[in-house]
Amino acid sequence: MSRVIFYSILLLLAGIGLPSACTPPDETADPADLRAAVDSLLRTSAAAWNGGDLDGFLGWYRRGGETTYIGSSGLIQGWTAIRDRYAPLFAAGAARDSLRFEDLQSRPLGAGLGLATARYVLFQGDSIVSAGVFTLVLQRTAEGWRIVHDHSSASAN
Amino acid sequence: MSRVIFYSILLLLAGIGLPSACTPPDETADPADLRAAVDSLLRTSAAAWNGGDLDGFLGWYRRGGETTYIGSSGLIQGWTAIRDRYAPLFAAGAARDSLRFEDLQSRPLGAGLGLATARYVLFQGDSIVSAGVFTLVLQRTAEGWRIVHDHSSASAN
Repeated sequence: MSRVIFYSILLLLAGIGLPSACTPPDETADPADLRAAVDSLLRTSAAAWNGGDLDGFLGWYRRGGETTYIGSSGLIQGWTAIRDRYAPLFAAGAARDSLRFEDLQSRPLGAGLGLATARYVLFQGDSIVSAGVFTLVLQRTAEGWRIVHDHSSASAN
Repeated sequence: MSRVIFYSILLLLAGIGLPSACTPPDETADPADLRAAVDSLLRTSAAAWNGGDLDGFLGWYRRGGETTYIGSSGLIQGWTAIRDRYAPLFAAGAARDSLRFEDLQSRPLGAGLGLATARYVLFQGDSIVSAGVFTLVLQRTAEGWRIVHDHSSASAN
């Protein structure tokens, strides 16, 4: 009997065959799944912009004080401040160009984290008004993938 | 004896008391530790730039094809391509302004991952030649924290 207990303890300490107990709650995303999620996020985000839906647009940023945005005016800290930055662009009567996203690249970073880069194009009809590149750091939340950091910068072309 | 085996198997399945087997190999960094590491990284990086040490400067970027850089010319994919982008600035006789970093903010993102933002200032004596902001996504490797994504953009001020 003591030998059985000894080997049982040995097995316990070795932790063999316990995938369910050791699996982290949030695994690294499959690259294709992440890409599909970010692609969907960007399409819905552009549709919200083009439809004048501020809350729809901001809904993709994770709520809370940690979320950050870097744009032409530097670092903006927190979801509320990011909303304040965008709100005037959605005000009634504000001239807002149409938005589309291009050249999406994404990759999983770690458990429940992803990195995406893409190009934004602001246009009116056939004319590009301005364009640039952006980096998104994304986190998987209970509601799905949300932006926790956005760095957008205008480009010459 | 069969009861001992039964309870041993039950314990195995429950996976109780196995912290060493379930601890992920790379835990979320302590915010202060991450900040100290990134602060050190940036100081050493600036010193390498100011000393004309291309390999020292590039050593902080994780080697490999996944590492990305977004600058004024758009997305650059892979460590070698990033090196090719910087190499002319370190060529003998190239006029390179002095570099310093300011306003570092950092936060852990998840296991072995961190996010940092800061401001770069290129200067000559008392004159600022250009300045901007950047985002770094950092990963803890066997050699320490390394940059896996850098997005740098010039700012007006």
